[in-house]
Amino acid sequence: MKNENHSRVKIIPLGGLEAIGMNMTVIEFEDSIIVVDCGMSFPSDDMLGIDLVIPDISYLREHITKVKGFVITHGHEDHIGALPYVLKDISAPIYATKLTMGLIEHKLKEHNLMKNTKRKVVKHGQSINLGCFRIEFIRTNHSIADAAALAIYTPAGILIHTGDFKVDYTPVFGDMIDLQRFGEIGKKGVLALMCDSTNAIRPGFTMSERTVGRTFDNIFAEHTMNRIIVATFASNVDRVQQIVNSADKYGRKVVIEGRSMVNVIGTASELGYINIPEDVLIDIENMKNYSDEQLVLITTGSQGESMAALSRMASSIHRKVTIKPNDVVILSSTPIPGNEKAVSKVINELSMKGAKVIFQDTHVSGHACQEEIKLIYSLVRPKYAIPVHGEFRHLKEQAEIVNSLGIPKENIFILMNGDVLELGEERGGITGHVQTGGIFVDGLGVGDVGNIVLRDRQNLSENGIIIVVLTLEKYSNQLLAGPDIVSRGFVYVRESEDLMEEAHKIVMDAVEDCLGRNVSDWGKIKNIIKESLNDFLWKRMKRNPIILPIIMEVE
Amino acid sequence: MKNENHSRVKIIPLGGLEAIGMNMTVIEFEDSIIVVDCGMSFPSDDMLGIDLVIPDISYLREHITKVKGFVITHGHEDHIGALPYVLKDISAPIYATKLTMGLIEHKLKEHNLMKNTKRKVVKHGQSINLGCFRIEFIRTNHSIADAAALAIYTPAGILIHTGDFKVDYTPVFGDMIDLQRFGEIGKKGVLALMCDSTNAIRPGFTMSERTVGRTFDNIFAEHTMNRIIVATFASNVDRVQQIVNSADKYGRKVVIEGRSMVNVIGTASELGYINIPEDVLIDIENMKNYSDEQLVLITTGSQGESMAALSRMASSIHRKVTIKPNDVVILSSTPIPGNEKAVSKVINELSMKGAKVIFQDTHVSGHACQEEIKLIYSLVRPKYAIPVHGEFRHLKEQAEIVNSLGIPKENIFILMNGDVLELGEERGGITGHVQTGGIFVDGLGVGDVGNIVLRDRQNLSENGIIIVVLTLEKYSNQLLAGPDIVSRGFVYVRESEDLMEEAHKIVMDAVEDCLGRNVSDWGKIKNIIKESLNDFLWKRMKRNPIILPIIMEVE
Repeated sequence: MKNENHSRVKIIPLGGLEAIGMNMTVIEFEDSIIVVDCGMSFPSDDMLGIDLVIPDISYLREHITKVKGFVITHGHEDHIGALPYVLKDISAPIYATKLTMGLIEHKLKEHNLMKNTKRKVVKHGQSINLGCFRIEFIRTNHSIADAAALAIYTPAGILIHTGDFKVDYTPVFGDMIDLQRFGEIGKKGVLALMCDSTNAIRPGFTMSERTVGRTFDNIFAEHTMNRIIVATFASNVDRVQQIVNSADKYGRKVVIEGRSMVNVIGTASELGYINIPEDVLIDIENMKNYSDEQLVLITTGSQGESMAALSRMASSIHRKVTIKPNDVVILSSTPIPGNEKAVSKVINELSMKGAKVIFQDTHVSGHACQEEIKLIYSLVRPKYAIPVHGEFRHLKEQAEIVNSLGIPKENIFILMNGDVLELGEERGGITGHVQTGGIFVDGLGVGDVGNIVLRDRQNLSENGIIIVVLTLEKYSNQLLAGPDIVSRGFVYVRESEDLMEEAHKIVMDAVEDCLGRNVSDWGKIKNIIKESLNDFLWKRMKRNPIILPIIMEVE
Repeated sequence: MKNENHSRVKIIPLGGLEAIGMNMTVIEFEDSIIVVDCGMSFPSDDMLGIDLVIPDISYLREHITKVKGFVITHGHEDHIGALPYVLKDISAPIYATKLTMGLIEHKLKEHNLMKNTKRKVVKHGQSINLGCFRIEFIRTNHSIADAAALAIYTPAGILIHTGDFKVDYTPVFGDMIDLQRFGEIGKKGVLALMCDSTNAIRPGFTMSERTVGRTFDNIFAEHTMNRIIVATFASNVDRVQQIVNSADKYGRKVVIEGRSMVNVIGTASELGYINIPEDVLIDIENMKNYSDEQLVLITTGSQGESMAALSRMASSIHRKVTIKPNDVVILSSTPIPGNEKAVSKVINELSMKGAKVIFQDTHVSGHACQEEIKLIYSLVRPKYAIPVHGEFRHLKEQAEIVNSLGIPKENIFILMNGDVLELGEERGGITGHVQTGGIFVDGLGVGDVGNIVLRDRQNLSENGIIIVVLTLEKYSNQLLAGPDIVSRGFVYVRESEDLMEEAHKIVMDAVEDCLGRNVSDWGKIKNIIKESLNDFLWKRMKRNPIILPIIMEVE
């Protein structure tokens, strides 16, 4: 497809760069916008009390009439999780492959959004037209079935977005990535390739998911007398398939446990993405009818998530499963950075109960390593390269790999969220920046917790709060009641009575001093209380709790 | 040494087992107690606002007259860090090797404890007598110089405690571990071996620290035109020595930066444990007189610690060092589990500033791997084995290794903190349990923050606090002022005015209802306010902040 009019297409990542998660990219040409993926991310440690984070979509709201649809590459939370929130503002149709759509629909049902959301299931190889764009879904491999790369035909040229992908020549379910099609489109001439960078710092090739199956067989063969419990990612349907295969081979029944595991495997099973032989699956309530060596439990919690099923079993608060000395527990996933401590805790707790813990560090990932990245670039041979998905260091590493393949540095763009990249056949460059950021979701509140509230939560969490309350008479400014001091999260008051008495005296002196000097400005009185108490506590304890003076007025 | 009277020695770990850190073991025989190590641990993520954790020493306080001294194996925080706190209660003399004592004295000075604390520097091979014990210090290798194992001669037999150790045949400083002496004492007959388990899950041998030196040389040779910044553990004096060696070889000046780095290297240098050629070390203020290729900075922050020097450089808040595109930053330490995310953050920030980051995953550790553990057991050949230092899973792994060497299971003891193990020539077993636990240090407060306060901090951090304050007239119970609502860490009030108004109405209704029904019990009024507001907020937002009603009384 040759482009003659020198018009340019805009690529604007609204999330997904700089840090993992919250993937969302705007592709815009004149009056047409499509949105590639719509993910959430889990809160980082400093986002206290936040449940999840979604991208700021101010840009989409401002251009709402242009938005033709959401095209989704695969069904992981960091690619679909923000949909229920974003659809409330931007009611555009969703396009995805069958399993991806099944997982999306599960979310839409929970949020009562099924009726008002247009949806279309797209097959690999099929194209859809949205505004001035044609989008073709190309089969890829990933750690969830039905993943797709997107070829986006724009008036300015062809863009290819890989989504999350790996090359698996022997996938557990379905076919391998459609390398031929990448090559065919590459031959036509591709303007830009947006390629997954997650594993760009890992040399070589990612192993096939199928290699994990063999290790399950070995473990099952070695432990024929034990109950086996396998924890893995709920979304890794192929991994679950292989556990089921081993269970079937060794004559064991399978119990699926953990809310997200039950959801995903339920959806995958309904849609035919997992094959569980009749009579192999049993309900957790029926476990008691089988002996240990006849059972396999497949459960969530491989990352040590504190509320997941495995953690609850390990800490003896799971209502239906009690860990026994004869159990063999397989952790079938490498810890995601940041989860190592939580995983260790679970392993220790299981070990203390006498269970044998097998840490299956598979080195099998859902993301392309360096040689796979080189392969895709060599098939597509784009004019421009835009590393996507990953932390900055991963994007930078891919940029270096791409450069080593002969794409000049000035044609490689490492974007930040919000950067507006305009690409045409003649030239490309960053021409602007739009508003982006993370919007915090806390309970049912979306966006009502911001940085000021988080800073307060941080202070509260480290030092607690001291409330000083007093009642003044209006006009006369006479002290009618108080000052009373109440604290939370500061010290254990019953064992710190002397300290609290001293603090009370400090506050009393400050108040009396103010009133004696006829200070009538409440702001000033509050400040004086704050400062004197602050000084005292810092000198005495080297701590600085939030101090909150409240003055009430009685006529 | 043969023991004929069948008397038994007690071994009581007060810390250090089950989780890393806070190492402290009581060795007791009749009226004599010695304490092996006195460490602190860093707070885990759920210990909000806590600075450090020290062991509960109730047992020592109860038997204070028996305590003859502290014998310290090496100078790491998890072995010496609690001394300043414990010495305030238990003023016993300290015995340690020269560098270890130097680091301890630095702490004692900070806490004004030098004058009242007896100290004796012990050489490797030398023995001291404490009560009925004789304690011999045996040279070992570790990631800090001057580490020692202890042979404790008791009337019940000989105990050997390895401390943290590895076998380094080619140490950077000083001599290799005194394997001969382990063998010699082993030949006499050893009652029990307490051996480091930290790396018990790692097969093979730990590499020599010296292997890291070669990789520094290579990196220095490849980057002769760049400024080089190396981050590593302050306490790894040998690592710093090797960086200094490479700097000297390549004609660079060395700047030491970061408080703990300056302290440790200062102490090591004074005592002759590091050899820095004249004129190589320069003050950070004089950096400006040298060009980039003439400089090496050695700094703290290799674990991504947010307040360490490297993190401050990465986030542009270091006052004296600005990261430049030409800089090469070497992270010379493997992340400790739990620190991976923080390390990633620093790498990303440095990369964004254009610095080249080299992640030197050395696989060199300070702890014995499986083959070294087997070696020590084979030299010592104890009757009883007590795996120490490590999480439960590490202790269990060592127990299995030991069992494979022929020590019967009933002679291997995996202890929990507080377990009282009694050992004699005839038999050994756990005969009791004493009080243990972590005491929280927050600012200057030791032990005044407990689990109730932590639970409050946790709640505050996740949901914030809402304070409801009102003033009632005494006797009449008439509402004189309020109810007023103030919140912190809940929502951004300016953007949630409607919500706060509704909340106010809910509280007003609840108060009026109480007063209308002549409820005069303040506890009841408070509960009704709490419940109605709780209900409202949960239904409306699915959140549950701490709700704190305060009633003031005016006559």
